[in-house]
Order: sequence, then C-alpha cells, then structure tokens
Amino acid sequence: MIWQKEIILPKFSRGIHLITDIITENIESIPSSGLLNIFVKHTSAAIILNENADPSVRKDLDNFTRHLIPDEFEKFTHIFEGKDDMSAHIKSSIFGQSITIPIVNGKLGLGTWQGIQFCEFRINGGNRRVVLTIYS
Amino acid sequence: MIWQKEIILPKFSRGIHLITDIITENIESIPSSGLLNIFVKHTSAAIILNENADPSVRKDLDNFTRHLIPDEFEKFTHIFEGKDDMSAHIKSSIFGQSITIPIVNGKLGLGTWQGIQFCEFRINGGNRRVVLTIYS
Amino acid sequence: MIWQKEIILPKFSRGIHLITDIITENIESIPSSGLLNIFVKHTSAAIILNENADPSVRKDLDNFTRHLIPDEFEKFTHIFEGKDDMSAHIKSSIFGQSITIPIVNGKLGLGTWQGIQFCEFRINGGNRRVVLTIYS
Repeated sequence: MIWQKEIILPKFSRGIHLITDIITENIESIPSSGLLNIFVKHTSAAIILNENADPSVRKDLDNFTRHLIPDEFEKFTHIFEGKDDMSAHIKSSIFGQSITIPIVNGKLGLGTWQGIQFCEFRINGGNRRVVLTIYS
Repeated sequence: MIWQKEIILPKFSRGIHLITDIITENIESIPSSGLLNIFVKHTSAAIILNENADPSVRKDLDNFTRHLIPDEFEKFTHIFEGKDDMSAHIKSSIFGQSITIPIVNGKLGLGTWQGIQFCEFRINGGNRRVVLTIYS
Repeated sequence: MIWQKEIILPKFSRGIHLITDIITENIESIPSSGLLNIFVKHTSAAIILNENADPSVRKDLDNFTRHLIPDEFEKFTHIFEGKDDMSAHIKSSIFGQSITIPIVNGKLGLGTWQGIQFCEFRINGGNRRVVLTIYS
C-alpha cells in the first residue's frame, strides 16, 4: 500500500525549523507499521532530525553550519544567484533532501527527543515543496 | 510484507563502531529481495556505511570529525548538557540517523568493503535504540 | 512489488557527475507511484541530489569539499591506499551512499532543478556498482 501527498510549506526564514506537527497533520491516516519518506524538492534546503526541546539547538546548528560552509568562500564561482546560493547547495547535499522514518504501532517511530526539522538555507527561499510517501 | 524490530545496542564508547554482525543477527528471516531501513532513535548518534576492514579508518573518521566539529566551538549556547552535546547534535544530523540498504539474493546488498557502523558522539551515550524495518 | 537492478557506472574522474539520465535509462518500467532507492556499493563515493543546470555548482561543490576535508589532514593514519583514500571515506559517509526518491505520476518526483549526481572521491575510482530498487 502506497500513500502519497505533496505539501507546500509556509515561507520560512533562513535557519532550522521544527515541522513535526506540519508533517503529522498532513498524514490523513497512518498505518500500524510501515515507513514514511519525506522528500524535499529543492537543492538549497534539507530535511533532518534533531532535538525537539531546546530551540538553542536549532540556533547553534544554524550558526555552526554558516561557520563551516560560509557564504564568502573565496573560490565560489556560482555566485550570480546571490551570495547565499552556493553555500546553500552544499549544505543541502550534506544534510540531505530525503529521510525515511519508521512507522511503529500507528505512530512515527521517533525517539523522545527527535523532531523533524526543515533547513532553509536561502535568505528568501519562498514556499518549498515536500513529497510525503508512506509504505505499509 | 513488513518486518520490524527495535533493538538495544550495547553501550559504546565515543567513536565509530562496526555493527554489521549485530544487525544481521537480529534479522530472523531475510527475504530474497527488498530493502532494510536502519533508524537510530537519538539525536547525538548516527548510522553510516564505511570500510569494514582496517580499524584505522574508523579512528581517522572519528578524529577528523572531532576536528571538523569541535566540542569547543565558542559560539555554542546549548552547553548545559555537557561540552560534547551540541557537537554531537550537529554530527548526528550531518552523518544521518536513517539509512536504507537493498536486500539482494537473500543477503544485504553491501559492497565488499562496506560495513554498517554506529557513530556514538557522546562521551556517555548509554544504551541506544535502533529500529530495523524490512520491506519485501 | 519490488524491481531491482545492479548497474555499473562508466569510469568517472574525481569530481561530481550528473547521472539522472543513466538512472532513468536503466529503469525498464516505472510504476505510477512508489519509491526508488539508489545505493552505491562503495565507501569512497556518494550519491546526492543537486542543481542540474549550471555545471559550476558541481565544480564549486567539489572544490569546497576538497577544502573542507583535505587529503593532507596531518593526523590521517590510514594512508597506505593513497593520499586521496581517507578523505574519500569521510566524504562518502558525510554525503551518503543511499538515497530514496519518490515516484509520482509515473516519473521520478524530482524538483525542477534537482539532478541525481554521483560523487567520485578517488583519483582512480574505476567502475562503480550501484543497486537500483523500486517499491510500488
């Protein structure tokens, strides 16, 4: 059994955003067991899991990532779409655009502290499209 | 057909650990073809594939990762759970908490040199929970 | 329903290579909906999604990755397989050897700008094996 839905996220600012509730609210009927794949249709954003409790984790993750992969890397040549563009492409491939989460006993099988987080790496990313696929 | 099992790993020291045998021993019956998803229920650990032969690969990977994402990054604000906590969260999202491996001819379809490796990024991570899901 | 095929890629030079066409040409029959998993059977290469239009994105990604994870890191001990070996193992685990892409309306559900890209991290990687698995 396959269930599939494309959703459009609200416009997010550059940074890391907790979207567990947006994902679960868009799943109309969850099977007792299976797998959920979340797929971001963009090359300057990512989908990750990280701590859902303390917002400072998301702030630190964003700050460190900007330090690790700076907009200002002097050898970037793909710069005509803005100074945040090439760094965003690199972050997107490193953090990943596809994640698969088990469904266990009719719920997402996340650990206690795991939240689904959308990484917007552009200053003006706009509305982002995400495909949800459930296998059961 | 879905098969699913949650397992608890032994307490591992901070570093990279080969767990291919632990994974295969916990799969009671493997289909002829399908996919295995391995999902770590924590935000300060990861699951990867890397060389299974020379232990120096795991040591170098751990050392380089500590260099790349240092505990001592001066702008970390999420520091009340220990100096190894925020670096662990970042490593966990970069290396990933979910991996999908094909099952081919009744075996994991790993390449000759690929081993399943658990990354413990905390000094005292304790027992870690992992969900195995097989689709066939 | 499972469809599975192992393919052998042409020998690629060190760098990032667009292989969307190679992947789609090897899928004999695509279902209306499902998931495609692409799995690289090697520990010094990776599979990612990134911008498919401007080749400078792939060049910049390769250059930045060599800067971030340099061959010359002085603490590497796994050096007997060549100076590009240990850096390749690290890049391979960071970028990932497995990716899952939704199939939507009988096509890969990629965004407009997303291309499937093979990352060859060795100077002489040779022919690389990739397993394609489709669930429908």
